[in-house]
Amino acid sequence: LDLVIENGLLVTAASTSRADLGIKDGKIVQIGGELGETRRRIDAAGKYVIPGGVDVHTHLDAPGDGFNTADDFLTGTIAAACGGTTTIVDFCQQRRGQSLQDALADWHRKAEGKAVVDYGFHIIVVDFNPAVEEELLSLPQQGITSFKVFMAYKGAQMVDDRTLVRTLAQARKSGALVMVHAENGDAADFLIEENLKVGNTAPKYHALSRPPRVESEATARAIAMAEIAGAPVYIVHLTCTEALEEILVGRRRGVDVRAETCTHYLYATKEDLAREGFEGAKWVFTPPARSEQDQHALWRALGEGTLQAVSSDHASWSYEKHKTLGRSDFSKIPNGAPGIEERLTMVYQGVNEGRLSINRFVELVATNPARLFGLFPEKGTIAVGSDADIVVWDPDATATIRQADLHHKVDYTLYEGKQVHGLPLTVVRRGEMIVENRHFVGKAGTGNFIKRRPYHRSSL
Amino acid sequence: LDLVIENGLLVTAASTSRADLGIKDGKIVQIGGELGETRRRIDAAGKYVIPGGVDVHTHLDAPGDGFNTADDFLTGTIAAACGGTTTIVDFCQQRRGQSLQDALADWHRKAEGKAVVDYGFHIIVVDFNPAVEEELLSLPQQGITSFKVFMAYKGAQMVDDRTLVRTLAQARKSGALVMVHAENGDAADFLIEENLKVGNTAPKYHALSRPPRVESEATARAIAMAEIAGAPVYIVHLTCTEALEEILVGRRRGVDVRAETCTHYLYATKEDLAREGFEGAKWVFTPPARSEQDQHALWRALGEGTLQAVSSDHASWSYEKHKTLGRSDFSKIPNGAPGIEERLTMVYQGVNEGRLSINRFVELVATNPARLFGLFPEKGTIAVGSDADIVVWDPDATATIRQADLHHKVDYTLYEGKQVHGLPLTVVRRGEMIVENRHFVGKAGTGNFIKRRPYHRSSL
Amino acid sequence: LDLVIENGLLVTAASTSRADLGIKDGKIVQIGGELGETRRRIDAAGKYVIPGGVDVHTHLDAPGDGFNTADDFLTGTIAAACGGTTTIVDFCQQRRGQSLQDALADWHRKAEGKAVVDYGFHIIVVDFNPAVEEELLSLPQQGITSFKVFMAYKGAQMVDDRTLVRTLAQARKSGALVMVHAENGDAADFLIEENLKVGNTAPKYHALSRPPRVESEATARAIAMAEIAGAPVYIVHLTCTEALEEILVGRRRGVDVRAETCTHYLYATKEDLAREGFEGAKWVFTPPARSEQDQHALWRALGEGTLQAVSSDHASWSYEKHKTLGRSDFSKIPNGAPGIEERLTMVYQGVNEGRLSINRFVELVATNPARLFGLFPEKGTIAVGSDADIVVWDPDATATIRQADLHHKVDYTLYEGKQVHGLPLTVVRRGEMIVENRHFVGKAGTGNFIKRRPYHRSSL
Amino acid sequence: LDLVIENGLLVTAASTSRADLGIKDGKIVQIGGELGETRRRIDAAGKYVIPGGVDVHTHLDAPGDGFNTADDFLTGTIAAACGGTTTIVDFCQQRRGQSLQDALADWHRKAEGKAVVDYGFHIIVVDFNPAVEEELLSLPQQGITSFKVFMAYKGAQMVDDRTLVRTLAQARKSGALVMVHAENGDAADFLIEENLKVGNTAPKYHALSRPPRVESEATARAIAMAEIAGAPVYIVHLTCTEALEEILVGRRRGVDVRAETCTHYLYATKEDLAREGFEGAKWVFTPPARSEQDQHALWRALGEGTLQAVSSDHASWSYEKHKTLGRSDFSKIPNGAPGIEERLTMVYQGVNEGRLSINRFVELVATNPARLFGLFPEKGTIAVGSDADIVVWDPDATATIRQADLHHKVDYTLYEGKQVHGLPLTVVRRGEMIVENRHFVGKAGTGNFIKRRPYHRSSL
Ligand SMILES: [Zn+2]
Ligand SMILES: [Zn+2]
Ligand SMILES: [Zn+2]
Ligand SMILES: [Zn+2]
Ligand SMILES: [Zn+2]
Ligand SMILES: [Zn+2]
Ligand SMILES: [Zn+2]
Ligand SMILES: [Zn+2]
Repeated sequence: LDLVIENGLLVTAASTSRADLGIKDGKIVQIGGELGETRRRIDAAGKYVIPGGVDVHTHLDAPGDGFNTADDFLTGTIAAACGGTTTIVDFCQQRRGQSLQDALADWHRKAEGKAVVDYGFHIIVVDFNPAVEEELLSLPQQGITSFKVFMAYKGAQMVDDRTLVRTLAQARKSGALVMVHAENGDAADFLIEENLKVGNTAPKYHALSRPPRVESEATARAIAMAEIAGAPVYIVHLTCTEALEEILVGRRRGVDVRAETCTHYLYATKEDLAREGFEGAKWVFTPPARSEQDQHALWRALGEGTLQAVSSDHASWSYEKHKTLGRSDFSKIPNGAPGIEERLTMVYQGVNEGRLSINRFVELVATNPARLFGLFPEKGTIAVGSDADIVVWDPDATATIRQADLHHKVDYTLYEGKQVHGLPLTVVRRGEMIVENRHFVGKAGTGNFIKRRPYHRSSL
Repeated sequence: LDLVIENGLLVTAASTSRADLGIKDGKIVQIGGELGETRRRIDAAGKYVIPGGVDVHTHLDAPGDGFNTADDFLTGTIAAACGGTTTIVDFCQQRRGQSLQDALADWHRKAEGKAVVDYGFHIIVVDFNPAVEEELLSLPQQGITSFKVFMAYKGAQMVDDRTLVRTLAQARKSGALVMVHAENGDAADFLIEENLKVGNTAPKYHALSRPPRVESEATARAIAMAEIAGAPVYIVHLTCTEALEEILVGRRRGVDVRAETCTHYLYATKEDLAREGFEGAKWVFTPPARSEQDQHALWRALGEGTLQAVSSDHASWSYEKHKTLGRSDFSKIPNGAPGIEERLTMVYQGVNEGRLSINRFVELVATNPARLFGLFPEKGTIAVGSDADIVVWDPDATATIRQADLHHKVDYTLYEGKQVHGLPLTVVRRGEMIVENRHFVGKAGTGNFIKRRPYHRSSL
Repeated sequence: LDLVIENGLLVTAASTSRADLGIKDGKIVQIGGELGETRRRIDAAGKYVIPGGVDVHTHLDAPGDGFNTADDFLTGTIAAACGGTTTIVDFCQQRRGQSLQDALADWHRKAEGKAVVDYGFHIIVVDFNPAVEEELLSLPQQGITSFKVFMAYKGAQMVDDRTLVRTLAQARKSGALVMVHAENGDAADFLIEENLKVGNTAPKYHALSRPPRVESEATARAIAMAEIAGAPVYIVHLTCTEALEEILVGRRRGVDVRAETCTHYLYATKEDLAREGFEGAKWVFTPPARSEQDQHALWRALGEGTLQAVSSDHASWSYEKHKTLGRSDFSKIPNGAPGIEERLTMVYQGVNEGRLSINRFVELVATNPARLFGLFPEKGTIAVGSDADIVVWDPDATATIRQADLHHKVDYTLYEGKQVHGLPLTVVRRGEMIVENRHFVGKAGTGNFIKRRPYHRSSL
Repeated sequence: LDLVIENGLLVTAASTSRADLGIKDGKIVQIGGELGETRRRIDAAGKYVIPGGVDVHTHLDAPGDGFNTADDFLTGTIAAACGGTTTIVDFCQQRRGQSLQDALADWHRKAEGKAVVDYGFHIIVVDFNPAVEEELLSLPQQGITSFKVFMAYKGAQMVDDRTLVRTLAQARKSGALVMVHAENGDAADFLIEENLKVGNTAPKYHALSRPPRVESEATARAIAMAEIAGAPVYIVHLTCTEALEEILVGRRRGVDVRAETCTHYLYATKEDLAREGFEGAKWVFTPPARSEQDQHALWRALGEGTLQAVSSDHASWSYEKHKTLGRSDFSKIPNGAPGIEERLTMVYQGVNEGRLSINRFVELVATNPARLFGLFPEKGTIAVGSDADIVVWDPDATATIRQADLHHKVDYTLYEGKQVHGLPLTVVRRGEMIVENRHFVGKAGTGNFIKRRPYHRSSL
């Protein structure tokens, strides 16, 4: 054996058991029983041993308006690893006029030699035309089994319903899952203009320009287009009760609709955008943060299975360099916030509060994302034959989250000063320890690109 | 080791892996790796190795109108075992004037020396009074962590909303889960009388006297009472889209509502009650079978997690001796049908048809029932330290279901002549082989009574 | 002509026109044109001329726990008349053991020689048995075309679902409309006991013991029973968004469900029950007052036609003599409040605020109640041939509502100190002036009993 | 007096009374009483006397793809008059590059010297730009108080959500009502292409390319945009339960949403598009006809007030000349069907069948359209001071509808061979008889353009 993790409480989405783990050649080979000789041992006494997190919504080295995100595939995946995530699926974005193949080549270049966790790519369709439409069909066989479209950001990524429905149709034919950023871009633009017109330029007007109705309308429409195309659909970063309601309406109609929320919607409210000075700009992401009631609804939806996953939507715009571009006009603040490192810990607080079982926690941050995006059973669970992506989780560790202690390169965290209970201690990726006692010990470029499997309705 | 199950594909609710299983002292002790010497080996090559089924809705040796069900704890649990079920939770029914303690003593006597699978009891509250109300609080510490009430069968088990809400309140205080038979008894009785009055006496009028509205009204009311009492609630044998809708409405309001369907609702329709001669009487159970659209809705709800479990509601009234009592009046036909043995195989057909993943199948027939009823993680999963309740499942076996081949004592099956693909081959209960190659090889009375854990909202 | 009302603005539910009105023999005989000689003239210049109000929910001379309401048919109908109401339908309540015929005879005696406005009776079914069931069928031909049942007040008026569904069935057969007091009595009793147990005895716990869920559950159930019986149903005193939602759900299913709200739900909130001292007891009525959001929802529902009518539910328990019986236990406070005189003026405020058109106002307080309860077209509108029940309404009059100025006998008003704009000035009943310039000038016993027509789905 | 209509049963939305009617100078001046000398008398014995119909959805002299509709303002309004309609509001459609003022001038020219009934115009916004946006604000003061947008027909009238929300905002500011053709054009185009691609070219694929989901999605979106703009919205030609559901959802959220259906949705089903030969092309209109269940839902919605009006959507494409252009490609069939003359009679059948009261019938075809579109109280009711727009309706007349008997110029009727009971006999417009005993006796160009009043939420 290459590695043994012993004395821990092994937790998967469907089991809780006291057992040692034997790892060889990057795979889990034995659970329980007598473990033979090993080159290395991790003592997990008093700890949980859980599958490595799977984060299917990250934007690393992503292009903004003349600048890129602070985190690239090196700093971003180091942060991921330190937070307990061993696989990410990042968004590869087509440029106008670019083929999807080309866009993917760009992203492969961005990741190679840098990524320290395993990774896959979703493709963002920006410039739809007959060639691109055709090209989509060929992506699943390259392991790209998810397509993303934006219903907002007119003039940039936003597509019309024609592109949406046709992308869904191509996904249906080729076994891909379409992910949708569901906000009505025209409605948001209208409210932005109305606000700017009367001098409402502060960050808080970002939230007021994108109320829940802007999201729920688009959510409903995305689901309707999926129904019409006969395709499954995955709603990213769902934030509010109104949108949850649309998910349920869609399912009642027989549509295969899945949805995630993101960590920050469980903690932030729209009041955060009104923080003193320009501080609120840190909370400028889309859809915006909602109310406390919405937070409760999201937690319940996670507990009951209405939502399938929690992602980070890590989009690391520098506060000092980029967010401040919108000082006199909230619509110029780059949209997005970091969270790739904080995700597991923050969701785990729901276990402490009795909102989630520890098994559901594992399911939401690892198993379900892996299942929905074609990474299971190699990723997302602890089982013989699965990749040895393991987190030793210390349920007793407490900490105050501080920007200084985080590994991302961006210059702030949404959770500054937050007390947490329960932290990732040691992280193993394909049998290799990459985080030891909360210190990164891995090596740049050791993460692998993963060809993902096609989507199937009964993947969960 | 006492037993090794080797070469199989091990499937839990959250993993699919090729690994051998080592069992000792009734527990799973090792998964994968080198398995030491063993007293016995099962070759599961080409087979699935899944957790033993957990059936939380059975009526064994249950009292009817002057007679008992055909199956007692011996024949009933042999049938269960042969169908791949290694744990049941049976309904212990209070008689009028009887204390709950007394009722439980009766049921312990019924099971002892007979049961061949492990078992627990739910308590059916029939005669509610201050003493019984008090008594309820003491049951969870005896391992009875679920209370059942009927909203139908006036003059027999039916309780009014006062009993319902107070039972829910006691459950909240003591950590129990209230199970509800949700049909409006008064509405059903009205329709029965209306039908009988005009000479509609055939079995099919059973279904017409208990339309979906009778069920959905009671479902909504049970959930409303749970909301008012601040308690969780579990709806048994949910059958139709209207009732599913009420489950979703309740969850949106924040109520912790769980629900099962039963095997026969996935296969029977109300047309079955109109079968030639008196044959339809076999399909007289409550709520009655619905439409094909309802079946599709139920399958989808199982796939998406709206429903948490599939139970058998095994109620084995003899067709020849008991069902025929209602030849000239459908309301005299004892309500219920067998299914304890057919459950796993019939639900498994949904895997063949692409409706359920194999993992979800395991979750629905084993893991979730175990979690919701305080049996997890000993029951319902395959993990080191869990009870070695294992089914070797042959995905390639085909059969035609025949009454002659079944092990229950009752004289018919609802699935006569049905072609199935996928069957339980060998069944191990706490390490002991009780079914071998589809033959029962166990011993009466070897099943244990299980004290179950309290219910918690985050149990899933 | 006996009377001419000239120079006014004539307003019906479907017209607004400047025209004089000619009345003869208690009927309207001419609108507009040259009006011949007349014995009397009313100058309505600058005033509206509207149909007399129809209040289909009053409790005059109604029995409580050992005492009757303060208002009998004399004081109550004088108050009605002064408020602009010229027809009431009062609740005749069966005593246990009493036949319905007998109960009606009692009510005829109560009204005769006293009533100053026209009146009809609904029958409240309290003690249901085969004889009563039969008797119901004969009531419509006596002009009693509405039956009332209570789903609350166990041990008093509450009936079970058997009585509810059977009463609905009899209504269907005989052309009657069943009115339902929709609150789950068992749930309310449970919450009352829970509150009293911990010493919550103040009036405000009345509202907390009957939350919206208690009402919406019963509303849903009443509608479900109507669906099962194939009968129409009328929900009295609907108060909240949750119950409104059930109305819409019912209609979507094809049930002919109608509903009213009452004046006080448009003005009171549950905070009124927490007024200083024991003052809150004045607001103890059922269902209790809700929130401001509910008020907005009710106004909208009136404007859009989701609700069909506004009634008073005038139940005049003396504050000093009767309400105070519950000083140390809110559950002993007689439930109900006065409002027969304030109704039109209070609903009219919605016209001032742009919530209702003046036509809709007329429809809600006069036309629709008349149509639904078989009084149309004699009552509820202004048309040639209709009864000359007319109110001259002064849209410019303002007043502060004072108990001292009201004509009811009970000792308080819920609207004390409220500024209003728009008041009834002069009231004509069947051509006879009974209120002149806000003074009652009529004579006891001049009101007629009205045999009402059967209900029909297309009555509106 | 100029005209007296005597001995009839006068029916308005809120009254039914036996009274004679006196008319002078185009206005109703007296109802009931002694009517003085008159120049003309109509004996309406045994007949109903109802307000002239108001049809707020017509396309006369409307441009298609290189040709215009068969009916212009002469033949179209003669047909209207013969059908009992005395006022229409027609759609004036902006051409690309054209100002709204110019478009209106075009429509004034189309109508002048031709129209025989009174008329107003809605403006269809096709080409939205800052100038047009500004121009919208000025239209209400010219009596154009309704703006129309299409969510379908990409490349032709379809607008995006930006135009939709901004048009709504302008309507809010200026007191106009936005009417929406609610179908998702992109989704429809996708399904059309999918059908054509596989050779599905027959008319029935028109219906299959525009399923209810295409309509309900757009309906939901239109309502969402109205919520965001804070404006009221009117959904034209609503056809199905899914869309009805969205209306209710919108109202529950507080949006002021109104909706009409059209005559043909009460009679046609999508099976009509599959009629022999190319006959089905006559039923090619949008949204397409639905199912019988939808028809029932529409009738119920009309009866209960969920829908406010029934319009004709008269769009008279010649079957022989224009519909046949789509013989080999259903998408080339001009969309639309005639119905301006049949409307009242066809809706009246619902009175015969007990679906609608006679008063509701009047409300749906005359009073409500007049109220919502600023024509009330001059139009839509019978009252002193209102325009003398009167129909003498013969409830006993029966007929078989025949193209040969109709007055429109287009070459077919959807109701060929239909037996009807109840017909308009004589029609008076502003006191002038224009139809006598079912014969047109009016004069071209005698219809007046009507400046309409602004919209207000409490207009009903
Ligand atoms: Zn996004
Ligand atoms: Zn993102
Ligand atoms: Zn049952
Ligand atoms: Zn059962
Ligand atoms: Zn009441
Ligand atoms: Zn009352
Ligand atoms: Zn249209
Ligand atoms: Zn049109």
